[in-house]
Amino acid sequence: MRLNHIGIIVKDIEEYKRLFYDIGLHTTTEPATDPIQKVTGLFIDVGFDNNVHIELLEPVDDTSPVTNFLKKKGGGLHHLCFEVDDIQKKTEEFKKKGFKVVSPPVECIAYDENFKRACATHTKIAFFMASDRMLIELIEKGK
Amino acid sequence: MRLNHIGIIVKDIEEYKRLFYDIGLHTTTEPATDPIQKVTGLFIDVGFDNNVHIELLEPVDDTSPVTNFLKKKGGGLHHLCFEVDDIQKKTEEFKKKGFKVVSPPVECIAYDENFKRACATHTKIAFFMASDRMLIELIEKGK
Repeated sequence: MRLNHIGIIVKDIEEYKRLFYDIGLHTTTEPATDPIQKVTGLFIDVGFDNNVHIELLEPVDDTSPVTNFLKKKGGGLHHLCFEVDDIQKKTEEFKKKGFKVVSPPVECIAYDENFKRACATHTKIAFFMASDRMLIELIEKGK
Repeated sequence: MRLNHIGIIVKDIEEYKRLFYDIGLHTTTEPATDPIQKVTGLFIDVGFDNNVHIELLEPVDDTSPVTNFLKKKGGGLHHLCFEVDDIQKKTEEFKKKGFKVVSPPVECIAYDENFKRACATHTKIAFFMASDRMLIELIEKGK
């Protein structure tokens, strides 16, 4: 398992994009909207040749699954994503540990040009709730 | 600039230590207490040969600087730490951008065996508030 990205919910993605530019970090994608999750997201390169990113996520509207998180906590750490070699095997392991499967492994969809980098062909992702405390995403990269 | 660690405030560090073990990640240090910041902390290896960590932090008591953060937000992302080659130069850059210097560059102190890895001789750290939004730590590693 290797950290792939840290998902952070923000109120205003453009504000944080500027903030990370100010710090000296650059986005690897422009903001793009996922119509299913109802979030606008972008990835920031944190200096490991694009092997680790910060993912900024802003809810599109009040019906987004992350709107409550933003309202309740004012934003912040939302999930940790780890890269695995075999997502199906790791899913079975997580189930045995009693982790709740929030979303089983599915091929991720590149909604537009900005998502193509993250969602290479046959890349699979899944979400789990670990001990009711932490949302964990797994990613198995496509070839 | 390269991500060094992600600082996360938790209520119960032992609970989260177990959670990360369950996920398949291991601590690189045992919990150790910093008597000045009044936090108990540990580092978790996230699969980059110890070049990136998650830092878990639990306030020691109600007088800890992070107690309010825990009470207000229920924990979560507290700071992002980036490694730089020249902390003094980057500090001047950050000042020019209007970032508030929370704590200027100082040599970090290894309070006990557990901190020795993080605080190699002459390692310097500093804290900044970027745009009133994000607490940023810089680290210049000692030789």
